[in-house]
Order: sequence, then structure tokens, then C-alpha cells
Amino acid sequence: MKKPPGSKTKASIWVVENSFVRRTTDQLASEEPLEIRLSPQRTVAVTMRTPGADFDLTAGFLYSEGVVSHRQDIYRMSYCDTKDLDVEQRYNIINVGLQEGLLPDLQPLERHFFTTSACGVCGKASIEALRIRDCPVIPTDMKVPAEVIYSLSEQLRSAQGIFTATGGLHAAGLFDAQGQLLRLREDVGRHNALDKLIGSALLADELPFSNHIVMVSGRSSFEILQKCITAGVQIVCAVSAPSSLAVALAKEFGITLVGFLRGRRFNVYSGIERICTN
Amino acid sequence: MKKPPGSKTKASIWVVENSFVRRTTDQLASEEPLEIRLSPQRTVAVTMRTPGADFDLTAGFLYSEGVVSHRQDIYRMSYCDTKDLDVEQRYNIINVGLQEGLLPDLQPLERHFFTTSACGVCGKASIEALRIRDCPVIPTDMKVPAEVIYSLSEQLRSAQGIFTATGGLHAAGLFDAQGQLLRLREDVGRHNALDKLIGSALLADELPFSNHIVMVSGRSSFEILQKCITAGVQIVCAVSAPSSLAVALAKEFGITLVGFLRGRRFNVYSGIERICTN
Repeated sequence: MKKPPGSKTKASIWVVENSFVRRTTDQLASEEPLEIRLSPQRTVAVTMRTPGADFDLTAGFLYSEGVVSHRQDIYRMSYCDTKDLDVEQRYNIINVGLQEGLLPDLQPLERHFFTTSACGVCGKASIEALRIRDCPVIPTDMKVPAEVIYSLSEQLRSAQGIFTATGGLHAAGLFDAQGQLLRLREDVGRHNALDKLIGSALLADELPFSNHIVMVSGRSSFEILQKCITAGVQIVCAVSAPSSLAVALAKEFGITLVGFLRGRRFNVYSGIERICTN
Repeated sequence: MKKPPGSKTKASIWVVENSFVRRTTDQLASEEPLEIRLSPQRTVAVTMRTPGADFDLTAGFLYSEGVVSHRQDIYRMSYCDTKDLDVEQRYNIINVGLQEGLLPDLQPLERHFFTTSACGVCGKASIEALRIRDCPVIPTDMKVPAEVIYSLSEQLRSAQGIFTATGGLHAAGLFDAQGQLLRLREDVGRHNALDKLIGSALLADELPFSNHIVMVSGRSSFEILQKCITAGVQIVCAVSAPSSLAVALAKEFGITLVGFLRGRRFNVYSGIERICTN
């Protein structure tokens, strides 16, 4: 039997610092979908999460959504162990048995649940689901000097008008291959900032991107990569760490994924060939 | 006619630094729900966003979800101007007209859309919707020295096992009134970390919280406050900024909301009476 997935995933990365490149290994926070089912086959949520404390997550989610109020409302929680379940999915589905009488409340709640675009219930299936969609093939022709990458973080920050005032906003910036900031959008939600950026390009009839870099504040997750892939972005940079699934997506679709971009230093998790260091 | 809401909201706050308290005004990032409707009355998403670039957000969202692929797929976008619409909601609903033939794809997508627990489509309505739910009344009996608050940030960080290794995780910590860390949960998603924390308390039959502090890494948003209110938390602390709606919720439900908690300094956005500075 497969062991439950861990909270950390090992990755082989490149560190670029002052234009020197070295290989090293790094730990990534694991990201996998979790599907919550109330009574067999009734899915109420698929959420991207870090494996670990899955029953806590399930109970807390149902409590926050007002489905349960007391410990006693839940009489059983278990990982789904249907025989035909793919081994990769074994720890990504939780069946919850609720006390009778609690189910009727569900109907009106269902549309409010947070769910992602991930159709599958394991990382592999989520990647597969994206592949089936009509995503542009990501070109491989872009080459960008490390010096350009170094410059992005500071540019993003100086351009962030609202952030400077409030300290409370995420940003997504679109840059050309020379590192010039073309457009910036901000939002309390990281995904919204990116949706605004991509939406503005759609409305200007500029999609898919051909030769562009996208930089986001904060971390990069499955959803950030998914949106960038759909828009044909070749290089995705983030101020902080990527999740395991963000890296897996970047590798699968041939995206250059940069993280921990601060000053004259960054990590490359995938697609180093687009970065020139001399 | 009411003006569109701005991206920033002014707030009167307290700054606590080395146990001195002063009043000042601050700018918060605005947070309001946006409802996206495809063809009249068909809601496909309610997302919490910062007002501004709303048409970009709508277009980008529909593009990322695979509903539209080209500029031409959208023939009209406008704010809903139904006469009976509450003035507060006027800029929070967008009607999208799609080219014929695009709608059939929607059915299977609908369950994957990101939506929040907010039932209304303005901040006021969202707060009202929470009020109707069976939330515990938040007690007012807690008093906590500023020294206790100062200590939380460092404690959270030292206890964050996975974060230390990966740099990529959000954390939610539960503390007692003396500032002792009782429980910590981590996740790539901020909301998941908090759901895990609250869920673990539910399963231990400890809810609602009676005399506890919750601290989250990152920012505090509508959803963070919503979850804390449901669980009866008196004091909510965050490493970064709150949104306007987080502050509105905290005030409405009598929660003490602390932000920018770093070292011996923090901001109080609501409920200063629970903090003792001498």
C-alpha cells in the first residue's frame, strides 16, 4: 500500500546568484488536491492543499461553511478506498459520514464552496486535465539574461501604487524580454491580480503571449501556473516559493519557473535554458 | 449616482510600539465581492476582489476557466444596472454577453468556479449573511498585555517546521491568553491552514474558542475573519495587512484585529480594549 503523501517534496534546483549558477536540492511544500465527499459520491469541494492533517482540514472546512457545528455531527471520516481508485489518488479523497438530518442544508451551500479548476483528484490527474484543454503550446525561443530577471522584483514593487499605500495587495506584472514592465494589476487576491493582468491582455487582443515574463508577488501555486500556461507565458517569476505542483506543471509544459527572486539572487525550478548568465 | 468604489479605504487605527499607543489613519486595500453573470441572472462566480480593473478581472477569469478564448467571444460587459439594485451593490455585479454557442460549455465548468461563502454581493450584504448564520456571540472578557502579542510572531515562525524547510507555507497558530502556543497548522493555502486549525479544535470538542488568540501568516481577508468569527475567536493577529472588509467584519462582530505584527510593533484595527499596554 502506498504511503500517505508527505508535506514536503524534494526538488533539484538551480541557484543563480550574481550570475553564478549552481545546482542544489531544495524542499518544496507539497500541493495536492483534496476532494471532500459527503455520503458516497457527493463531492462538495475540491481544494488544493498540503497533505497532512487532512481530517482536521475536512472538519474545519465543514464547520466554517456551516455544515457541521459539533464534533458529534461527524460520525465517520476516512480516506476513500474504492478498489478501482488510482494509487496516486488514494489519500486525496475523504468520505465524510454526517449525522442524519444534516444533509438537507447542503443544497444552498454547494455553490459557495471553494473549488479549483482541477478536475482530477491527484496532481497527475490535474495536470492531465489541463493537457486536454486547448492550451497554447509554450514556445521555447525566449532567452533572457539573469540581469533582466534581477530587475523585475524592484520594478514590480516600485510600480505598485496601491501596495505602497496599503501594504496589503498582491501584484502581477507583465514584462517583455528586455525586462520592461508593460502592465501591472493589483488585488487582495493573488489569483485575481493575475486574472486582471491576463484579462487586460485578452481585451487588448494580445493573447496568447509570445515573448513575455509574468511576475507575481507571493508564492506560485498550481493555479498561478495553470493561468500562465493557458495564456502562453514562457517565464514565470515569483517573490516567494513555488509549491510541488507548480513545479510539476512548469516541467510538464516547458515553462521557466523562477522563485525567491530577491535582489541579485533567484532559484530556477524548471527551464533554466531560457536564462543566460553570461 | 454612487461613484465606483475605490481600491483604497481610509481607516482610523492604533499603532502599538514598545507599549506606547498612538492613533493614526491608515490606507487599507479595499475588498468587495464581485459577481460575474453570464447572460442575465446566471451567476457563475462570486469572488472577493479589490475594486478596479473589474472588466479585466472578469475577462481573465473567463479566459483562465476556458469559457472564452478570444476577445471576440465577449461582445458586451457592463455593470448590472437593474433599478431595484441596492446602491452598495451597483459596481459589484458584471453582466457578460457571450457570443452564441459558447454557453453550452458552461454546465460542466460551473462546479469548478471559485466562489466564497459570501452570499451577498456587497460587503454589507456579506456581513449580513454571516450575521444570519448561527455564529457564537464573541465574548468581550479577554485582556492581553501587548508583551504577549509581541511574542506571537516569533513563536509562530519557530514552530513552523515545514516552513523552515520550504519557505513556502502559510501557518495558523492557536494561542491561549498568556501567549502559549497550543496548536499550529500549515498549508500552501492560508484558508486551509486556518481550516485545519479550527477543524482540529472541533474534533477535540473545543469549539467555540473561549479565551484564545489566532495568528495567521500573511494578510487577513474577509474569509479569514469569517472563519474566526464562526469559531468564536476574540483576538485575530496577522503578520501583514488586513483588507477593508476584514476590518469591517472585525468591528461588526467585536473582534480585536491586529496587523503588521512584527517585532515589538503592531497595528490594531478594531477592539483595542482587549490590549493592555501597562
